[in-house]
Amino acid sequence: MPVNIPETARKRIVIIGAGFGGLKLAKKLVGSGYQIVLIDKNNYHQFQPLFYQVASSGIEPSSILFPLRKIFQKCKDVYIRVAEVYSVDTTKKELQTSLDMVWYDYLVIATGVNSNFFGMKNMEKFAIPMKSISEAMALRNHILLNLERAVTLFDKDVDEKKALLNVIVVGGGPTGVEVAGAIAEMKKFVLPKDYPDLNFDLMQVNLVEGSDTLLGGMSEHAAEKALFYLKRLGINVMLNTRVTDYDGNWLLFADGVKIKSKLVIWAAGISGEVPEGIPVGSVGRGKRMLVDAYNRVKGFDDIYSIGDASFMSTADYPNGHPQVAQVAIQQGANLAWNFKAIKKGELEKPFRYIDRGSMATIGRNRAVADLSFLKFSGFIAWLTWMFVHLMAILGVKNKLLIFVNWMWSYITYDQSLRLILRAAESKKEI
Amino acid sequence: MPVNIPETARKRIVIIGAGFGGLKLAKKLVGSGYQIVLIDKNNYHQFQPLFYQVASSGIEPSSILFPLRKIFQKCKDVYIRVAEVYSVDTTKKELQTSLDMVWYDYLVIATGVNSNFFGMKNMEKFAIPMKSISEAMALRNHILLNLERAVTLFDKDVDEKKALLNVIVVGGGPTGVEVAGAIAEMKKFVLPKDYPDLNFDLMQVNLVEGSDTLLGGMSEHAAEKALFYLKRLGINVMLNTRVTDYDGNWLLFADGVKIKSKLVIWAAGISGEVPEGIPVGSVGRGKRMLVDAYNRVKGFDDIYSIGDASFMSTADYPNGHPQVAQVAIQQGANLAWNFKAIKKGELEKPFRYIDRGSMATIGRNRAVADLSFLKFSGFIAWLTWMFVHLMAILGVKNKLLIFVNWMWSYITYDQSLRLILRAAESKKEI
Repeated sequence: MPVNIPETARKRIVIIGAGFGGLKLAKKLVGSGYQIVLIDKNNYHQFQPLFYQVASSGIEPSSILFPLRKIFQKCKDVYIRVAEVYSVDTTKKELQTSLDMVWYDYLVIATGVNSNFFGMKNMEKFAIPMKSISEAMALRNHILLNLERAVTLFDKDVDEKKALLNVIVVGGGPTGVEVAGAIAEMKKFVLPKDYPDLNFDLMQVNLVEGSDTLLGGMSEHAAEKALFYLKRLGINVMLNTRVTDYDGNWLLFADGVKIKSKLVIWAAGISGEVPEGIPVGSVGRGKRMLVDAYNRVKGFDDIYSIGDASFMSTADYPNGHPQVAQVAIQQGANLAWNFKAIKKGELEKPFRYIDRGSMATIGRNRAVADLSFLKFSGFIAWLTWMFVHLMAILGVKNKLLIFVNWMWSYITYDQSLRLILRAAESKKEI
Repeated sequence: MPVNIPETARKRIVIIGAGFGGLKLAKKLVGSGYQIVLIDKNNYHQFQPLFYQVASSGIEPSSILFPLRKIFQKCKDVYIRVAEVYSVDTTKKELQTSLDMVWYDYLVIATGVNSNFFGMKNMEKFAIPMKSISEAMALRNHILLNLERAVTLFDKDVDEKKALLNVIVVGGGPTGVEVAGAIAEMKKFVLPKDYPDLNFDLMQVNLVEGSDTLLGGMSEHAAEKALFYLKRLGINVMLNTRVTDYDGNWLLFADGVKIKSKLVIWAAGISGEVPEGIPVGSVGRGKRMLVDAYNRVKGFDDIYSIGDASFMSTADYPNGHPQVAQVAIQQGANLAWNFKAIKKGELEKPFRYIDRGSMATIGRNRAVADLSFLKFSGFIAWLTWMFVHLMAILGVKNKLLIFVNWMWSYITYDQSLRLILRAAESKKEI
């Protein structure tokens, strides 16, 4: 049974995923003469770069979530469907979803990535990833619950106390660096006020990285600066260190050493989200879908993939493009251009990545930036980047309002967000 | 094993519940020479009067939740413990909690009320109550999920569509009236913009009340005005109507009639939350604890109960006081005064309720008010009440900020809050 989407003369482009890439593509295709069907598990776009702020109670989830229906209010020919995509039938050109069947003329897979635990079942069971807002909220709850537990223990239970206050972040990429920094600042500026009867010398934030450098992919200068900032925040950074197991209490390292901790945050690995039905021959390293310069998935001329889930090898990027928002956004824009070209019977444009540089924030207001034209750091850099980024992604409407509102809550910082908050058990299956 | 709370020479007052009553009491007792232990399931105070706004995506949860540790920052001798209270041992003067044992010199039970389904197991299973912020969030998700489902159905499935869009609120008290009004306004002003391909003539909001009047306890004038407002919002109000069963699809009425609906909101009954260990002899109608004019629970001189969970019969209120915030707040204040009196060996003051009047809002900005000195309605009335209420409950700190911030998001209304949002499965048991 097909899902109810009006049948029109227009060709239908189905986009799976409303992340940076999928959202950009959909917006650029508004009014292009195609029928756009945007499918996402959630009814909102998630502004991933700030998950770590949600996890550390810096901002509220709703500040970085944008309801898709709001973004596309008054956009004709755009149909939003909140559903899980189970599989794709590439011959029938149909998707099986949690709602029902959706057929397509063109399919764009912008599903991004999910956490990769490299087969460590226990790690997957007990460590907390941060690839979705729900996980970021769960992490926030976890941190606060550990503190509430710690405050009720006696001094003689110092080991248990330490374990509850011991935060271990696995993975020295931007996410790991950012969340570690944010939690370290919570410890420094916010938590002592909330828990006067808790000795925060017992709290240790650790950052574990398997390689010999942080922020791999960024410049040496950035990596060094980040290391300096993190250490100044009192974070224990362990480079060249691999973890092998975690049972919820003990984190085991490759060299056999163990650390007791009730909170391990997993930011160490990702792998592409490939829907059932895409042949293995079309999937490459990191479970990313192999695409040509036009983002067409290998072996298909009606299926595309953009963003983190895709793997495009070019002269400048023989090992694929970096899995960052900018690539996804630019690929979304380029693909939109190509769809219009196809319609006009014009030549399609191969994707060329314009590296606007990369960036990571440490703590709340320090940052390291590698830009094409200059390298800089500090609060202003961070602010600029935030602004540019929000502008790039938000709809025309009230982007400034959101930015101002967000800045306001951000600057006040010690606001009322340290809430252990959950929605009650939903009484329906959807 | 006792929970770690410093042992001091001071008498320890343990307060269960950080609602209007418990919070007021704790704040008034700061610096009184007692040791205050405030126990709540959550680490925040919930501003109940606005749950219906959260449910209808009007404001975000964090706008009406106030972290207890923030409220009591820098307050000496106040110890917050986030825990579930399992039972009380009135002879040993100990509480068994999810954390462990907590002993007391004086115990104040300010646990409020919970939904009462009058033994209707199915109703409890399928209808959605609104007694906590979690439930309000679940209701929001439920409403939005029903809409997402409805939009994917074909016109021929009109019955199923109607069932998904059919909202039935059971209970014509303030909560029922307010949530019904808010959802009706969502339907009118917000949803058609989000769901252009959905015919909202199919959506019907119903309010079911067992008695022959809305807002029982308020004036006839208020009841009539409320009825008028609700009808003008297109709400189908059914008075003298009792429901007997609901299986998640069909709501059954006492007269045998059935209505198909995927959403039944339960606002029809409440009963006191009495901890294990309080003898039945001390509990009266509506499972409320019988207290004397000093809020002492019948049969005890060291156990008190204030607010909704208590039943105080006086000359002016032979059938007990209304279960509203004002009573809880005033009882909290009076009890604080009495604890100080006890310390000074002075006479305790019997509680006398000063009725500041009652009020219900219909939709977003209409309201009916019965005040002692005048009866009025409309937006200004509503605004005044909001302001007074917030002032009454918030800490000295940033109450204005919160009010302004809240008003801002409230006035913009069509903001980005229609989020189907859940925290991921927490990976710990606490």
